[in-house]
Amino acid sequence: MTRHAESSEFLAAAKTEAARAVEHRKKVLEHVGAEAFTVDDFHKEEPGDWKHTTGRSDVTPAELQLGKRCHGAHVETLSADITPAGSHYLLIHFDVPLIDPSAYRLKIHGLVDKEVSLSLADIKRRKAQTASVLMACAGNGRMGLTERFTSHVPWGPDAFGCADWTGCSLAELLQEVGVKDGAAQVIFTGADKGVEWNTVDYFRRSLTVEQAMTGHVMLCWQMNGADLLPCHGAPVRIIVPGWYGMASVKWLTSIEITSGGWWGTEMDVYCYRRSRLDPTPLPIEQLPVRAMMAPPGHPDFYSRTRLLAPGVVRVRGKVWAGAVDIDYVEFSSDGAKTWQRAEVGDKSGAFGWAAWHFDWDAKTEGSYVLSCRGVDAAGRTQDPLCDDQFNYTGMGSTQPQLVYVRVTADIETVGGSINLEVEEEAAKKPEVMEKAQWDGLYRAPGSQ
Amino acid sequence: MTRHAESSEFLAAAKTEAARAVEHRKKVLEHVGAEAFTVDDFHKEEPGDWKHTTGRSDVTPAELQLGKRCHGAHVETLSADITPAGSHYLLIHFDVPLIDPSAYRLKIHGLVDKEVSLSLADIKRRKAQTASVLMACAGNGRMGLTERFTSHVPWGPDAFGCADWTGCSLAELLQEVGVKDGAAQVIFTGADKGVEWNTVDYFRRSLTVEQAMTGHVMLCWQMNGADLLPCHGAPVRIIVPGWYGMASVKWLTSIEITSGGWWGTEMDVYCYRRSRLDPTPLPIEQLPVRAMMAPPGHPDFYSRTRLLAPGVVRVRGKVWAGAVDIDYVEFSSDGAKTWQRAEVGDKSGAFGWAAWHFDWDAKTEGSYVLSCRGVDAAGRTQDPLCDDQFNYTGMGSTQPQLVYVRVTADIETVGGSINLEVEEEAAKKPEVMEKAQWDGLYRAPGSQ
Repeated sequence: MTRHAESSEFLAAAKTEAARAVEHRKKVLEHVGAEAFTVDDFHKEEPGDWKHTTGRSDVTPAELQLGKRCHGAHVETLSADITPAGSHYLLIHFDVPLIDPSAYRLKIHGLVDKEVSLSLADIKRRKAQTASVLMACAGNGRMGLTERFTSHVPWGPDAFGCADWTGCSLAELLQEVGVKDGAAQVIFTGADKGVEWNTVDYFRRSLTVEQAMTGHVMLCWQMNGADLLPCHGAPVRIIVPGWYGMASVKWLTSIEITSGGWWGTEMDVYCYRRSRLDPTPLPIEQLPVRAMMAPPGHPDFYSRTRLLAPGVVRVRGKVWAGAVDIDYVEFSSDGAKTWQRAEVGDKSGAFGWAAWHFDWDAKTEGSYVLSCRGVDAAGRTQDPLCDDQFNYTGMGSTQPQLVYVRVTADIETVGGSINLEVEEEAAKKPEVMEKAQWDGLYRAPGSQ
Repeated sequence: MTRHAESSEFLAAAKTEAARAVEHRKKVLEHVGAEAFTVDDFHKEEPGDWKHTTGRSDVTPAELQLGKRCHGAHVETLSADITPAGSHYLLIHFDVPLIDPSAYRLKIHGLVDKEVSLSLADIKRRKAQTASVLMACAGNGRMGLTERFTSHVPWGPDAFGCADWTGCSLAELLQEVGVKDGAAQVIFTGADKGVEWNTVDYFRRSLTVEQAMTGHVMLCWQMNGADLLPCHGAPVRIIVPGWYGMASVKWLTSIEITSGGWWGTEMDVYCYRRSRLDPTPLPIEQLPVRAMMAPPGHPDFYSRTRLLAPGVVRVRGKVWAGAVDIDYVEFSSDGAKTWQRAEVGDKSGAFGWAAWHFDWDAKTEGSYVLSCRGVDAAGRTQDPLCDDQFNYTGMGSTQPQLVYVRVTADIETVGGSINLEVEEEAAKKPEVMEKAQWDGLYRAPGSQ
């Protein structure tokens, strides 16, 4: 069900973007290879100790610090049509700037016929459109890797959100100012400044003029029908539907059109690489396919283990693939060993997500590991469940979510006692659950 | 400057609450002692390995998981009058419930003359008031401890926020339904259910009838002028001004008045204890005094080290003490060794915070550790900078925030290079900074 009237230009752009997404994924697989980048490969490339770590398999205080400033989605909100603000994932590279809306200016300059400096009112006067856009971090799932590139946010599979974004078309704005011949790159600069990879800069990203003019990129001032919160880029941010989140620059202060290619820190960080010094890193762009579920039942506060009363439970989730359509979703209750088809609904717009559900017959008390995976209309699939990563930087991982569920009637007894330590120890026996499944669960915090 | 017209009843309640806060702090010090609870004390009380840890000085995946679901404040927003939603700290014990506002009911029952079931419209029809309320987690600062009680959220000093909360008076509502003679306790139940400390329960907390009837406790449906977000307790939550956050039950579904005392899991968890099996744990109630600063300059993404150009910088922060007035705030630029008085403004309402600033002359390039501390009108002070905790559960810590600043002209050079690894290593030399200061900085993630 499409809840928003998306313009014909926006829908046409979605088709272009879907074709690009499939093409880009092929390039990624050609570049880094379809096989896993192993722990041995990692050690060969990065033999020294990392400054901030005592060992790459531990969580470091610096990682924790980023994990607490930034935050994952509350995955239980996957049962809703959209992710509420406050439950949507958030990555803030530097500081949240607090911008006075009445003093806000956006400068559009460089290779344009007419340089402009727009106020917030100027921007809001333009024709508005609203689109459901699934956003995810390129590093989503990084904590599922045995050894990881530690200098970034330690995501479980929870670095996502799907919100209704309202704004005007970037293409229309660029047509208005007139892009000159010879223009190649559009550089977006945010108000947040800091140091990343030893380089001083504002947060900046670029698109090619072709990408920027496709018709789906928006300058947004609302999220879920309300003015943007400061942490989501108030008063104006870019939204690049179908791409990983790093392209959607927050606190936008400048759009500069340049003739040459442009390569800044935030372009360099977000790349697929085969090695530390890969001479031809491939920029991260469109989202792959991924299914996630709202973990059923009730959680244990600390371990996030799920407790569920025996019976049939409707497991609900969402599946996304950028602008590409969904083919099917599969559900597993035995730790990604055997799979069954789930029911899948329509996408919530060209760049949104589709709801799925599976009626799981959990009649027998015991321990289960639930999982799900999606396949899109272009035949793209998720990564297999695996300790290794498929590129050096641990970007773009789509290992399936794992959710540990204990089916027990005791959860109905308010005031009753459940000793999960004993139950989880029992479940770790080989006949109940393979050790690798347990390791996977506890290496991927936030999965539940 | 009081931005809100608080009713005379509300202001009178603040005076009562201030007296209680001072009294409670005295009881706490009598109970756990004014001296630190040392690492040796901790080992004696909790000799075994904690199930989820590989060692208590490491961050565990389970802690990270909670740190990412919950999240600290974006401390840079301390320069603003209120903490925006999305930048306010958040602790969610179980799942975020998604409640249909049109189906919402609040039951008030037990020892009342007239049991009622109120719709959201019924509640919103009542006389509304808005108050700035500083909220903080009882576990705020826990990561500053060398060895800690790991079964909770790994906060730096960032588990706080000050928002404008709008709602009606609980006391008036209770007067309306008529509290019967013999009533002693008011139990608040939220919609979120789960397991904590092996016990199945909804999130519940209680106040004595006297505490509930004082006149400052509110049933709120708005935060910062907007309907509550799901993660902040939509559609209705309790706000207990001046208390640590655990008392402000979210997703409120039931208020039950009972004759006896009531002691549930969430009352038991939030206690000051001298030992694991302390026979007389003291409930956590009112907030102590604490000052925090918005770290000046710009951050390094990963380490959160601050980079600042040479010159005079106005360091801005806030100070709070529940309902107690502020006496003074001190600022230090040498790692809490020497202190200077800062300028302090008025509180933003009876339970809000006061802005402070200090014009720091950072003319000489080099490394500095900034800190601040508050003293309130009742003479209450913050904890000293110390590795130890002052009670077994690590609750109620007020060790000063530490902010590492590198003063360097290079931060002005966008595109320039700053190698913090080299600079931080140099700063660790005894003549520049004591080792203990560095350890403190890196043990307290989120401090910057």
